[in-house]
Amino acid sequence: MNAAPSPVNSWIDIADEAAFGARTLPYGVFSTDGEEPRVGVAVGEHVLDLAPLAAVEGLDGAHLFAQPSLNPFLAAGSAAWAAVRGWVVELVTEEIHRELVEPHLMPASRVTMHLPFEVADFVDFYASQSHAENMGRFFRPDSPSLPPAWRHLPIGYHGRSATVVVSGTDVTRPSGLRKVADVPEFGPSRRLDIEAEVGFVVGRPSQLGNPVAVPEFAEHVFGMVLVNDWSARDIQGFEAMPLGPFLGKSFATSISPWVVPLAALEHARIDPPVRDPEPAEYLRDAEPWGLDLRLEVEWNGTVVSHPPFADMYWTPAQQLAHLTANGAAVRTGDLYASGTVSGPEADQRGSFLELSWNGSEPVELADGTTRTFLEDGDVVTVRATAPGPDGTRIGLGAVTGRITPAPSFP
Amino acid sequence: MNAAPSPVNSWIDIADEAAFGARTLPYGVFSTDGEEPRVGVAVGEHVLDLAPLAAVEGLDGAHLFAQPSLNPFLAAGSAAWAAVRGWVVELVTEEIHRELVEPHLMPASRVTMHLPFEVADFVDFYASQSHAENMGRFFRPDSPSLPPAWRHLPIGYHGRSATVVVSGTDVTRPSGLRKVADVPEFGPSRRLDIEAEVGFVVGRPSQLGNPVAVPEFAEHVFGMVLVNDWSARDIQGFEAMPLGPFLGKSFATSISPWVVPLAALEHARIDPPVRDPEPAEYLRDAEPWGLDLRLEVEWNGTVVSHPPFADMYWTPAQQLAHLTANGAAVRTGDLYASGTVSGPEADQRGSFLELSWNGSEPVELADGTTRTFLEDGDVVTVRATAPGPDGTRIGLGAVTGRITPAPSFP
Repeated sequence: MNAAPSPVNSWIDIADEAAFGARTLPYGVFSTDGEEPRVGVAVGEHVLDLAPLAAVEGLDGAHLFAQPSLNPFLAAGSAAWAAVRGWVVELVTEEIHRELVEPHLMPASRVTMHLPFEVADFVDFYASQSHAENMGRFFRPDSPSLPPAWRHLPIGYHGRSATVVVSGTDVTRPSGLRKVADVPEFGPSRRLDIEAEVGFVVGRPSQLGNPVAVPEFAEHVFGMVLVNDWSARDIQGFEAMPLGPFLGKSFATSISPWVVPLAALEHARIDPPVRDPEPAEYLRDAEPWGLDLRLEVEWNGTVVSHPPFADMYWTPAQQLAHLTANGAAVRTGDLYASGTVSGPEADQRGSFLELSWNGSEPVELADGTTRTFLEDGDVVTVRATAPGPDGTRIGLGAVTGRITPAPSFP
Repeated sequence: MNAAPSPVNSWIDIADEAAFGARTLPYGVFSTDGEEPRVGVAVGEHVLDLAPLAAVEGLDGAHLFAQPSLNPFLAAGSAAWAAVRGWVVELVTEEIHRELVEPHLMPASRVTMHLPFEVADFVDFYASQSHAENMGRFFRPDSPSLPPAWRHLPIGYHGRSATVVVSGTDVTRPSGLRKVADVPEFGPSRRLDIEAEVGFVVGRPSQLGNPVAVPEFAEHVFGMVLVNDWSARDIQGFEAMPLGPFLGKSFATSISPWVVPLAALEHARIDPPVRDPEPAEYLRDAEPWGLDLRLEVEWNGTVVSHPPFADMYWTPAQQLAHLTANGAAVRTGDLYASGTVSGPEADQRGSFLELSWNGSEPVELADGTTRTFLEDGDVVTVRATAPGPDGTRIGLGAVTGRITPAPSFP
């Protein structure tokens, strides 16, 4: 774990309602009018333009920030991540740096955010027991709700990297074959859904043939993003036997623009739920990476759910150990997500399929309308916070997207 | 389709047993002692070093060949592909170019081949009816052998791009959780298998939200490789419900080093099997892309199978239309494979699971030994040919790999 201290007070004026205080300090890629995309750090209502600051200070790694993606910085490894966080903490907490820093603080409202990193492989897990049980009830009502392997290993699958998009990108309603009165018919999805998830971003790669053990998690994983894995349940339901979800998922996956380093989550670490039966040796975690992240799902302005990441059965460290246990290599820019975060309570479900109980219990929004699945024009935002120092909570950002109508086919 | 003529006669001396005659002219990335990897074309026992030749001739695209991957050339689009093939055909068929070309013909035995392109997304389909029926019998004996959607759409899923390796790379036996006497246990796979497949390589990307229609196939797809999608059946069997294969596949996928352009397959186009029921509009193919490719699977020197690609129910053009029907974008370097090629006859099966009928009918090799699944040290090679002009057949290359033992875990 990186050991940089959590900055509590900043000379920068930070509004209470700011997405990020001075304790998160996430990294992203931004641009301003007519200038190239480059690496920044979010603080309060501002973005710190790292490249010119690092150049002025003559930092060795200054070139890592004058880049259109975080990948070179991610590849630099955990010592570099800690050193840069230490430097940024100093810049924003010690007023002596005000004169140096102020010219490079851009108002967040005036920058455009880009996809923060080039996604190598994208894997999605299925680590919430409540979610897996609910999905089993809806999709396989005649079988036990938890799949046979579920308590033995973190079930996951590969998704499409090409269609990972940055928060704010419109999501076009996908078309596909889905069953209408038992006959497959091609057309726009009628059961378009979200999945509120947390994603983990690999920095340091591993070598083919060398599994990454549970305790090596923080050597390879740089940080986290919020993920909305948009899902067309009708397309998914028709296609997924026996090879899993494909077109029901591959049209779009939104991620938050700001990657929060693990170093900002030091106060969030908790024990995950008790695993029963005890997992195989390669999945045991003496110092577990459960995380007390609290998610919030907002549908057209109404908060409809509070999914608790603390309830996730499998931790991100176990997921990384699992996905490399067969010798598979990870690369800089790999994204793996937790799967839908759902708690056991009705207001803790991380998908609309679950919130509307398979479409049978419409969700009421503040404007008086009701919803089961997404309608064109709907906007969904997933936010999260984590425990900070001294009983505070810190912001982890947001991922948002709006549904646009399916194009008509010729 | 690119319209360059098939070169029949070359001034280069080409042995009858050469992997490639002068009608295939595939592209790959090679290196020689102490020099950087770069793009070459295989002809007979030689590799044509394109970069210096293109530079001497002052070609506009010369920089596309002084590259460690085919991606820049793939991205250049179908007009560039046709122009370069026309130029190479002229070089190798017209003796007037001998003096220019000969210094740039490297003996194939003296070059090292590299992964020919950077793999963006990797998708694997399931397009052989015989294979899908056999798998259904083995994995889901209590259900109909063909999944419900199988005749309605090309079933597929995403695989791991990071572990696509070039032919000749050793494949380490993967470990994972598999059921031993009904209890899950972690250890080396005992049912390690192959899947003989054909893969298609995307050159020109598509835009998010814009499906690629069946007739646009050859505008986007540059060519094909042979694929061996190594599969650990015991790991796969335990993990795959409900999200599909994951660690049972993600440890390694081998591809042939030479990418054969579609332009070399003009004599191979045939009608695929009749599709019943008629597919949805977006999957209809007025000018179908069935291909009469004949595969051959060699196990430790014994040819054990002759899988017929002509029998594939869904064509690569339909697969591309399907995988983009929901608006998903394809990128330069995308690889999508056919799924195991199996014919209806016993000696046409493209996996050892099928050839040994789920382990019950051992396969006899020429050395007198028998096999059900792969043993350490086993070598498997998949080759293929296609019809050439005037009733000839042309070589499509080979993909080979050797199994090395699982590492012991601490």
